[in-house]
Amino acid sequence: MKAERLVKYRRISPAHLNQDKMKRYEKFADEVAELIRRGVLAPGEKVPSVRHASRTYGISPSTVFQAYYLLEDRGLIVARARSGYFVREHAQRPLHEPEIARRQAETTDVDVSELVFSVLDSLKDPDTVPFGSAFPSPDLFPLPRLARSMAQSIRDMPAQEIIADMTGGNGHLRRQLALRYMVSGVMLPPGELVITNGAMEALNLCLQAVTSPGDLVAIEAPAFYATLQVLERLKLKAVEIPVHPREGMDLEALADSLARLPIKACWCMSNLQNPLGASMSEDRKRALYELLHTHQVPLIEDDVYAELYFDNQPPKPVKSFDRDGLVMHCSSFSKCLAPGYRVGWVAGGRFAERIGRLKLMTTISPSVPAQAAIADYLQHGGYDRHLRKLRHALEAQQDAMLASAARHFPASTRVTRPSGGYFLWFEFPETVDSLQLFQQALAQGISLAPGPIFSATRRFANCARLNYGYPWNTRSEQAMELLGRMLRSF
Amino acid sequence: MKAERLVKYRRISPAHLNQDKMKRYEKFADEVAELIRRGVLAPGEKVPSVRHASRTYGISPSTVFQAYYLLEDRGLIVARARSGYFVREHAQRPLHEPEIARRQAETTDVDVSELVFSVLDSLKDPDTVPFGSAFPSPDLFPLPRLARSMAQSIRDMPAQEIIADMTGGNGHLRRQLALRYMVSGVMLPPGELVITNGAMEALNLCLQAVTSPGDLVAIEAPAFYATLQVLERLKLKAVEIPVHPREGMDLEALADSLARLPIKACWCMSNLQNPLGASMSEDRKRALYELLHTHQVPLIEDDVYAELYFDNQPPKPVKSFDRDGLVMHCSSFSKCLAPGYRVGWVAGGRFAERIGRLKLMTTISPSVPAQAAIADYLQHGGYDRHLRKLRHALEAQQDAMLASAARHFPASTRVTRPSGGYFLWFEFPETVDSLQLFQQALAQGISLAPGPIFSATRRFANCARLNYGYPWNTRSEQAMELLGRMLRSF
Repeated sequence: MKAERLVKYRRISPAHLNQDKMKRYEKFADEVAELIRRGVLAPGEKVPSVRHASRTYGISPSTVFQAYYLLEDRGLIVARARSGYFVREHAQRPLHEPEIARRQAETTDVDVSELVFSVLDSLKDPDTVPFGSAFPSPDLFPLPRLARSMAQSIRDMPAQEIIADMTGGNGHLRRQLALRYMVSGVMLPPGELVITNGAMEALNLCLQAVTSPGDLVAIEAPAFYATLQVLERLKLKAVEIPVHPREGMDLEALADSLARLPIKACWCMSNLQNPLGASMSEDRKRALYELLHTHQVPLIEDDVYAELYFDNQPPKPVKSFDRDGLVMHCSSFSKCLAPGYRVGWVAGGRFAERIGRLKLMTTISPSVPAQAAIADYLQHGGYDRHLRKLRHALEAQQDAMLASAARHFPASTRVTRPSGGYFLWFEFPETVDSLQLFQQALAQGISLAPGPIFSATRRFANCARLNYGYPWNTRSEQAMELLGRMLRSF
Repeated sequence: MKAERLVKYRRISPAHLNQDKMKRYEKFADEVAELIRRGVLAPGEKVPSVRHASRTYGISPSTVFQAYYLLEDRGLIVARARSGYFVREHAQRPLHEPEIARRQAETTDVDVSELVFSVLDSLKDPDTVPFGSAFPSPDLFPLPRLARSMAQSIRDMPAQEIIADMTGGNGHLRRQLALRYMVSGVMLPPGELVITNGAMEALNLCLQAVTSPGDLVAIEAPAFYATLQVLERLKLKAVEIPVHPREGMDLEALADSLARLPIKACWCMSNLQNPLGASMSEDRKRALYELLHTHQVPLIEDDVYAELYFDNQPPKPVKSFDRDGLVMHCSSFSKCLAPGYRVGWVAGGRFAERIGRLKLMTTISPSVPAQAAIADYLQHGGYDRHLRKLRHALEAQQDAMLASAARHFPASTRVTRPSGGYFLWFEFPETVDSLQLFQQALAQGISLAPGPIFSATRRFANCARLNYGYPWNTRSEQAMELLGRMLRSF
């Protein structure tokens, strides 16, 4: 029966098996891992025997062995003497998922910045356990290889090109990006891509391109705190739309707001939403696009975590349904390849020219050598191989944090199970004040991102976002235990 | 008598003779060049004989010879057989300087962007003679040496530092910058420096830090066109203060406006103003500071050309008179070392924290590898040696363009003689329409920056800014001749 489930599962992803250059055993291991992550193979359950699996899938026993060794390495299964392999029991008492938040006030002036900065300041101490960080561990990135690309591309770059690249962006990088869009099914007209100083600049420029001070913008609740800061800076008003922990933005609530309020733009993370980790289904993405299209409200799609999916297929952006340039699709290399290089982009749809001009007026251009380095790496560095490794590392770290939370946090704690990224969203018992928790934890050398920084209306007082993007170790475990004790003291 | 003039001149710059590590003959050559530039030694005039100069200054004849060879190389003097050296007669019929512009309307909404972009677009063709460019030739920069610094510093950089440097900027670069301020007599409290994505971002952030939409800002007329674009983007109103071609901003006009209008900030280039090239004297800089201090109006000092001075002493910024953090001093490496790297900064005075936070909200950080590369270059690359070479090259190119203009342009044309930078500002006869000239020239493969893009009120219709930052060659000469013919056709 287990084998059947595997077979059934395999049928839905045949593309994955033949498409890329992964070794056979890695593919098989990935598929088993996926089943474990989805709970098809439950903790403690026996995985198919080597003989059984070999026969069912028509692969050699040694391929199955290699796959199981890999899964053991990744902490997903354990060998028991003379019994075979079993799914690890790291979460005997798994925590429940949170529910969708209730809707709040219609429109809100935003002034959350001070609070956000006090949290960001707390992260400066390198000795702090970085559960509050917005970045995964830099050790997960191929920085030495990237440095080689940097050295080579800047050495070979004609002087004139350094000046020319400032206006339109590095041509090589633009081609590489367009190619990646094409492979994922999005055909971009040339000229639609604007290279920016990270996704943050792209998002700022998009919002400026389609709004004026005082305008209403539909955003998520909870939302990435920088969204709130950008709204605050541009003197825009927020219309908070609840986000379901697994399904993403509540489209009924959005439809309702669009029908009643003069909303000028919608800002949304359709994949691996920060902080909830929700990913919208393709149907819901299409529905979101059609809804916005009806009202001709531009979508600013923040898609910076898309490459960090744990599923077998990369998630599509809403941009892939865009018929008339209504979607501005923003992303960057900061979270998946090159932190600190500050290279992002936006496929700006019908607003691309306007966005490009705003960029020339504010920062002119992102760093030209950084663009050239990333372009070289994309072509020669093995980006997709790196991404697979990164996803595996993050998935194992998510398992570790979930298991640790189940061991140490109060049983009534709720937690998300995102299928990617590096954030968990915890909903603690009602009595917990996460701002107080933040202060107490910081005094003990642990950072976290308290719930209220993710809301214009300072909701989510009993929630927090924890980062599992750093390799799990005894310090992480001790920090979770300590947090658990603090939680119980509320 | 010539020797006396030289002696007199030497007395006013003794610091220069002992301070740095220039060779003796280079120093002497520089001083003679300065006298030529200032007209103390006129075109055609004989320079002191080697014997005479050697005796007067107590330097060896070979040092004088070396200096004269250098000056000959730089095109400033020529040897005549059996007669000695003479100042080159490149401008027998020099053009006059323009006069200060009259004042215009009190306050102005700004909408010059479209015009600016059409000019910028025209520069994209690499075959165009780049008189309209905003940059000097990239061949004047030590890009290969900088690439070595880049390769080395990024290779040696700990992964954690890449993340950490995003919040506060690269520590090494901050120290190098603070040191350069210290050497030039400005003691910056730690924390006052914010590293930005070029000076353009610094200027944007400063303006945002001290204004709200609708506020009045005092700017120069003519002003750098990006100033106008930034005002337009932030929905600020311009109060245009005339700039004298040599003395800089008209302080009486400024005082008058400050007394009558609720001006929220003043944006000024005190050194080598773009486009006029004016540099304020120290007395005028002090007076400007005191005036703004009285009204408690913050100064945004755009000082990106300061390193490109032709005088013997580096010019001081207004910032050096700042007693209470009222001055935000902005600069970058884009015009003097590393175009395309996009590394600038602001010494933000009492507004530094606010500026730093705005930066975190808009672009987070400039590229970390680019910062590290420049820090390494500043320490090991020979920055001051490069700057001396760059200044000499630009000075020779200015001479060449001035001489060419005198040969080819109508005699009633007026032109500035800035003591640095790489722009000349031409005031053509009243009948010339520089926007038409721009179109005609572009059709012939020549770009230029027409006067109206430097004014919120679209003045300076008969003016243009020409860039002499590219090595002078026969194409440049032909382009000037062609422009001369077009000018005469008006």
